[in-house]
Amino acid sequence: MDFATVDLERQARCGFPEVIFAPGKTCQWLEEIVRKLSDAGQDVLATRLDNEQAHYLADRFPAAEQDQMARTFWLKQSAVVGPQGRVAILTAGTGDLPVAQEAAVTARAMGVAVDVIVDVGVAGLHRLLKRLTEFVSADAIIVVAGMDGALPSVVGGLVSCPVIAVPTSIGYGTSFDGVAALLTMLNACAANVVTVNIDAGFKAGYVAALIAKQKTEGTGPR
Amino acid sequence: MDFATVDLERQARCGFPEVIFAPGKTCQWLEEIVRKLSDAGQDVLATRLDNEQAHYLADRFPAAEQDQMARTFWLKQSAVVGPQGRVAILTAGTGDLPVAQEAAVTARAMGVAVDVIVDVGVAGLHRLLKRLTEFVSADAIIVVAGMDGALPSVVGGLVSCPVIAVPTSIGYGTSFDGVAALLTMLNACAANVVTVNIDAGFKAGYVAALIAKQKTEGTGPR
Amino acid sequence: MDFATVDLERQARCGFPEVIFAPGKTCQWLEEIVRKLSDAGQDVLATRLDNEQAHYLADRFPAAEQDQMARTFWLKQSAVVGPQGRVAILTAGTGDLPVAQEAAVTARAMGVAVDVIVDVGVAGLHRLLKRLTEFVSADAIIVVAGMDGALPSVVGGLVSCPVIAVPTSIGYGTSFDGVAALLTMLNACAANVVTVNIDAGFKAGYVAALIAKQKTEGTGPR
Amino acid sequence: MDFATVDLERQARCGFPEVIFAPGKTCQWLEEIVRKLSDAGQDVLATRLDNEQAHYLADRFPAAEQDQMARTFWLKQSAVVGPQGRVAILTAGTGDLPVAQEAAVTARAMGVAVDVIVDVGVAGLHRLLKRLTEFVSADAIIVVAGMDGALPSVVGGLVSCPVIAVPTSIGYGTSFDGVAALLTMLNACAANVVTVNIDAGFKAGYVAALIAKQKTEGTGPR
Amino acid sequence: MDFATVDLERQARCGFPEVIFAPGKTCQWLEEIVRKLSDAGQDVLATRLDNEQAHYLADRFPAAEQDQMARTFWLKQSAVVGPQGRVAILTAGTGDLPVAQEAAVTARAMGVAVDVIVDVGVAGLHRLLKRLTEFVSADAIIVVAGMDGALPSVVGGLVSCPVIAVPTSIGYGTSFDGVAALLTMLNACAANVVTVNIDAGFKAGYVAALIAKQKTEGTGPR
Amino acid sequence: MDFATVDLERQARCGFPEVIFAPGKTCQWLEEIVRKLSDAGQDVLATRLDNEQAHYLADRFPAAEQDQMARTFWLKQSAVVGPQGRVAILTAGTGDLPVAQEAAVTARAMGVAVDVIVDVGVAGLHRLLKRLTEFVSADAIIVVAGMDGALPSVVGGLVSCPVIAVPTSIGYGTSFDGVAALLTMLNACAANVVTVNIDAGFKAGYVAALIAKQKTEGTGPR
Amino acid sequence: MDFATVDLERQARCGFPEVIFAPGKTCQWLEEIVRKLSDAGQDVLATRLDNEQAHYLADRFPAAEQDQMARTFWLKQSAVVGPQGRVAILTAGTGDLPVAQEAAVTARAMGVAVDVIVDVGVAGLHRLLKRLTEFVSADAIIVVAGMDGALPSVVGGLVSCPVIAVPTSIGYGTSFDGVAALLTMLNACAANVVTVNIDAGFKAGYVAALIAKQKTEGTGPR
Amino acid sequence: MDFATVDLERQARCGFPEVIFAPGKTCQWLEEIVRKLSDAGQDVLATRLDNEQAHYLADRFPAAEQDQMARTFWLKQSAVVGPQGRVAILTAGTGDLPVAQEAAVTARAMGVAVDVIVDVGVAGLHRLLKRLTEFVSADAIIVVAGMDGALPSVVGGLVSCPVIAVPTSIGYGTSFDGVAALLTMLNACAANVVTVNIDAGFKAGYVAALIAKQKTEGTGPR
Repeated sequence: MDFATVDLERQARCGFPEVIFAPGKTCQWLEEIVRKLSDAGQDVLATRLDNEQAHYLADRFPAAEQDQMARTFWLKQSAVVGPQGRVAILTAGTGDLPVAQEAAVTARAMGVAVDVIVDVGVAGLHRLLKRLTEFVSADAIIVVAGMDGALPSVVGGLVSCPVIAVPTSIGYGTSFDGVAALLTMLNACAANVVTVNIDAGFKAGYVAALIAKQKTEGTGPR
Repeated sequence: MDFATVDLERQARCGFPEVIFAPGKTCQWLEEIVRKLSDAGQDVLATRLDNEQAHYLADRFPAAEQDQMARTFWLKQSAVVGPQGRVAILTAGTGDLPVAQEAAVTARAMGVAVDVIVDVGVAGLHRLLKRLTEFVSADAIIVVAGMDGALPSVVGGLVSCPVIAVPTSIGYGTSFDGVAALLTMLNACAANVVTVNIDAGFKAGYVAALIAKQKTEGTGPR
Repeated sequence: MDFATVDLERQARCGFPEVIFAPGKTCQWLEEIVRKLSDAGQDVLATRLDNEQAHYLADRFPAAEQDQMARTFWLKQSAVVGPQGRVAILTAGTGDLPVAQEAAVTARAMGVAVDVIVDVGVAGLHRLLKRLTEFVSADAIIVVAGMDGALPSVVGGLVSCPVIAVPTSIGYGTSFDGVAALLTMLNACAANVVTVNIDAGFKAGYVAALIAKQKTEGTGPR
Repeated sequence: MDFATVDLERQARCGFPEVIFAPGKTCQWLEEIVRKLSDAGQDVLATRLDNEQAHYLADRFPAAEQDQMARTFWLKQSAVVGPQGRVAILTAGTGDLPVAQEAAVTARAMGVAVDVIVDVGVAGLHRLLKRLTEFVSADAIIVVAGMDGALPSVVGGLVSCPVIAVPTSIGYGTSFDGVAALLTMLNACAANVVTVNIDAGFKAGYVAALIAKQKTEGTGPR
Repeated sequence: MDFATVDLERQARCGFPEVIFAPGKTCQWLEEIVRKLSDAGQDVLATRLDNEQAHYLADRFPAAEQDQMARTFWLKQSAVVGPQGRVAILTAGTGDLPVAQEAAVTARAMGVAVDVIVDVGVAGLHRLLKRLTEFVSADAIIVVAGMDGALPSVVGGLVSCPVIAVPTSIGYGTSFDGVAALLTMLNACAANVVTVNIDAGFKAGYVAALIAKQKTEGTGPR
Repeated sequence: MDFATVDLERQARCGFPEVIFAPGKTCQWLEEIVRKLSDAGQDVLATRLDNEQAHYLADRFPAAEQDQMARTFWLKQSAVVGPQGRVAILTAGTGDLPVAQEAAVTARAMGVAVDVIVDVGVAGLHRLLKRLTEFVSADAIIVVAGMDGALPSVVGGLVSCPVIAVPTSIGYGTSFDGVAALLTMLNACAANVVTVNIDAGFKAGYVAALIAKQKTEGTGPR
Repeated sequence: MDFATVDLERQARCGFPEVIFAPGKTCQWLEEIVRKLSDAGQDVLATRLDNEQAHYLADRFPAAEQDQMARTFWLKQSAVVGPQGRVAILTAGTGDLPVAQEAAVTARAMGVAVDVIVDVGVAGLHRLLKRLTEFVSADAIIVVAGMDGALPSVVGGLVSCPVIAVPTSIGYGTSFDGVAALLTMLNACAANVVTVNIDAGFKAGYVAALIAKQKTEGTGPR
Repeated sequence: MDFATVDLERQARCGFPEVIFAPGKTCQWLEEIVRKLSDAGQDVLATRLDNEQAHYLADRFPAAEQDQMARTFWLKQSAVVGPQGRVAILTAGTGDLPVAQEAAVTARAMGVAVDVIVDVGVAGLHRLLKRLTEFVSADAIIVVAGMDGALPSVVGGLVSCPVIAVPTSIGYGTSFDGVAALLTMLNACAANVVTVNIDAGFKAGYVAALIAKQKTEGTGPR
């Protein structure tokens, strides 16, 4: 394979196989990489597929689940176990849903239960507070927001678990394709907020799932 | 005067005399400009005085009020009338106080009553909600915040009057001296939020007072 | 509804119902949100509709007014009352018209009279000065400008009411899609100028209408 | 207290008391805030103290531990319990030490064991690989780096726990006071890397400790 | 001379000798460069001298004129001829004076008559219009402005000669040390406006003088 | 006309009629504006026409000259007089030609002779030096360059007339659509270089023509 | 030729003929430039051809090699000599291949042997270390990476030859089309890393080949 | 040593020992690191020493050479061999000298002969061309320039060896502390130009020396 060096050892090192980033790859390349991973008996997750890539892979891997909104491909090969831990995903608006969905697919692929709560932005606080009980006891919370990106600061102050903030490119003008929301999140006054790249639903889902699974497994005090 | 062209007609056109921006002016220049305005019988407000300027003017205009935190000079010459309208000023943190104070001095100089509510940032929402009755009925609200600048979005969604958001340069790293807060505010989800320059307490106080006074005066339906 | 949490209480809190931001919403989602609001007896304003969204909603809500230039949808349900207050909208150039129109539709939807004065940029000052009487007595003024964004500074110095400056993305090169105009406006020398996001005609119309209505209602001195 | 609204309920909501950000506060204000928190029986952590603030508080709260490199003030009031979980902190260079130390003080204040591994930047990979066993089994890892900020990407690929990347303002020219390192970290190829603000050792320590404690406590599978 | 390569031919090529930019040069280096130029019989202009440099050179070249506000050193060696052409320099505010003065010294050094009109910014238009006759017939106009940088757009629309806009670093927050004014000027709606670097009074004075002298010399139609 | 306020007095004030910026205008609007100007007996220049606009106007104003590369429309109504003065236009590369051509059309429309010298960028200095005699005696020089934008600095050092630098958006990556070239030009070491907006061939042609015409007319020493 | 000034002397001065940058050139222009160079007996390399340009030239110069992935045109006219020196090209990911290929074509055109090693990014270090022997002895190494751009720092620390880092526009969000990777590379901790423009495979291949050829030729100690 | 992990193997891997970056290190730390390296028999180069660090080390390592302008510390321990290869360093201005000197010290420390040619910026081309023979045959050329950063483009077109461009922070306003020069250099039209960080004289000297030494050693054709 002269176009990729698939990292088959990542599962052993990092606890989850290499995930395929689809942009910039031809359909044929994607197919070969998927095969390489699946032939090794590993689960295969790919993100950011465009329509052509999605259809091409659907024809060749009918067993895989594809989520159109999340733009993901998910070929499960390992045995299913009950969900380990629980992640809550909140979005500030409706337009943030695709990124939230990418996070949800990722976390579920990693074996974690996920609840999604949509459109609870800070301009109508009561919408958020009304649903506090649904997310306050999650093991990790993902907050997805564009425009002013203010939701993670508020959520962070209401809970005791880590909050992973995902800025989205939703907005116009000075939202600068998500930069405004990113800066808001990096400057969040709440101490439990960390941030990932703009629109990086995958990465947020990944880390939230890691945290939730670690908690479920536990270690006991040293 | 070969260093300034004082605009003595501004009071007639705009309803308030020209306000002096102190940086870049020598003490002598400041003195002459103050004199020019006061000789014309106008109230004199100057902002952003450094210590040297403040002391120099204090010696020459002992009747003026100077506010060290706000860095303002205020020489009232017109008759005092009861406050017209009421402005509430909220700050997200303690460090935002000097900017809030500049706004407060300005609005009071324009004849408006001012309430200041400090340190009610969104990471502890209950602090804000607890004081809702104090600001919900103001004629205009100024929200001063650095870091994530998230407070105006939340306040905007709770009230029906215009909210003037003032980003401050409080923060570090990606606060970029107030740019992060500014962007948050320009992207505020609440529809009633407008924004001024970073640390522009003066301008926020000015416009909030205009709005409050207009409301007090009223016009009746057309 | 698993894609939106409509804020039916916003009218009570903020004086106007939640306004729908169309981008990123499917036609079906838009329809359901419009229905949710209209079923609750609230007026429905939506902004930034693309052609597909506009036609889809036109078929289903024939009673609604749609403005192609402003890209708005307006479904009035409440009783009409005479205009409360008056807002003047000025544009620097012809290309700024769509943003001005979004502001005009919004302010009219809120029950305020609106005058639009087009193409009176500062490179031909006489055009502006000739029409001074048309806008000098407005309750609030919106100034829409791209490129150098210099018009609000000039207008601000001519009037005594608040001026809401709207930068537009009109221009090329270093206009940086409206950033140049935004910075000009944030730095406006006139003290009565506040700013909103680039191309944010809606927000400018909203706040200007708030100010004009407040003034009309009046409160009398305290 | 008219300069601050101390959030005494944060411990109940978030699991740790409000932490004091010292910049922009007078010594007197700091003292009063510390007293308010300590009178409520809460532990008091303050960050980013300058020398004057540090000495002032040292005189008044001799029981507090102050760390000059980390610029922290730590007044422990609660009972000591054995460390819960373990956090590893790696720095790319020597100059990153103060930020790492702020993270370490914070995590220890939250009851977590901390190991610090210094100056293992990627230009000499063997330095890092040689110490892999020291950090590979940590519950959470903090990676502190300025300049190219490349270390978190490498560390992320070697471990299975969450990695919290902290960009520092160490560098010159195009390091842009930490922006280069921040961007590197937000774009880290490793999926388990999240990011905090530039020089935000406190926030990294806080979240890493949350993760480590959650894991130690565990919940068991659901 | 191993620290500089003085360009003694510039006068022949460009019509004016090399001008010395003082920052980054030791006093000794400055002295030697001044001597090299003056020994060649050329006029010597140096800009941006700090106090130490200014005093050092004053001791050694008592015949030179130094302007403290403009931070210039001017050693005239050539015969004086009557002024050729006339340049008007306008400033928006008082704080722009040092930059205007650097332009004035430069243009006068090049043999052009200069009028300076101070503090005629656009927030008080009448100040500018009142003095129109003083600048409308100049051969070239320099407009110096910080903050919103709006003055050149207005002046450009009133006159028929070239306008050289000089942004200054006067302002705060989003003035970004002159960037806001620079962008305004680059986007000026008036067609006759060109721009130079922030605070580049020297360059503006230089080019304005070139234009004025060319006009005075004339060539007659071809 | 409710979409434009044509400035028919600009010719009297500024020496040339208002020039039409086509983007953002409908074909009908353009037609009406052209008619308004031509009915007043003024020459009509429009820039940045897209294909649709160009064809629409070509049908209605067959007497107008349109230049496809420059994207200009030129309807001459005034009597032709011999060229007044001479402008040289240099480009660094071939891709800079459209901008150079916009400048050339503009300057010619204003009655000035124009020479265009193409592709003499600094990576092959001899190409430039070989043609020195063609441009050294021009009344004003326009230098058009993208990428590194280095050509104006070199040209400026070779001539005694003003040099107007036009950055173009030619390049990739860190050319940032012309920002790199713009910054180079604003920082040009040569003292006779001024700058206009990115791709602003029109403005460069306009000012160069003003300078050349002024020189031709002359005034004689005062 | 009025659209280009071909630099036929570049081969003599710089050791390689002028290379054609295709964007912004019509097919006819490209053809004429290719002919001018080939008629002079020089090798002709063109980069960044779009499909239309590529096909047009293929029809007219069937002897030329075109590489679709690299978007290059290569018409060899000089005699072939054995490769002089060896360059290794590493990519961090699969998406970086087109840029790597542009570098490879360029270096081979200059007569240097090239090895390409794909997808050895730092998140799976073992992939890189496993192939160390393949690149450690190269005369120069090109490292092509988008996203975090961390690979050059790691490679630089493993080898003793110069490393030329090429940032690519692969990534999303805060990759800012390659700016993040560029900054990482400019700040690389390894001392032997230099950088070129984003996606500038050509320039990297050119300089790497220069270095490799110089080494092969040698000079012996002085 | 708990503040640094000295990389004693770098000489073996990279051909030169680890170089110490002084900022952010205490004097004691510096001393220990110097000792660690020198005890291992390695040459010790440190860069960017401030005055306090320089004096502290001078007292303890009197055998070391310190260069005040370059801010370097150089403790040679290995045997001296004749210079291998020759590097030419050109500066555009006098203010670029300290960066050039850092490059010179570094290259000489690596055993390469260095010629420095000062103040040959492009505004006076003849200064550069006059000295062409001094640098045209160098093995590698370093060009150091601030402000417009145009010199490397010109030099690159005159020579056949690699050119390493070093932007400096010399300038004001839109030089943005070297960013303008950096962008110019990254966009250099000459194909043989690579770039390093702003003010990175060390890195330029390092890579230029690598290239020069490689050439001297030679390998002969493969």
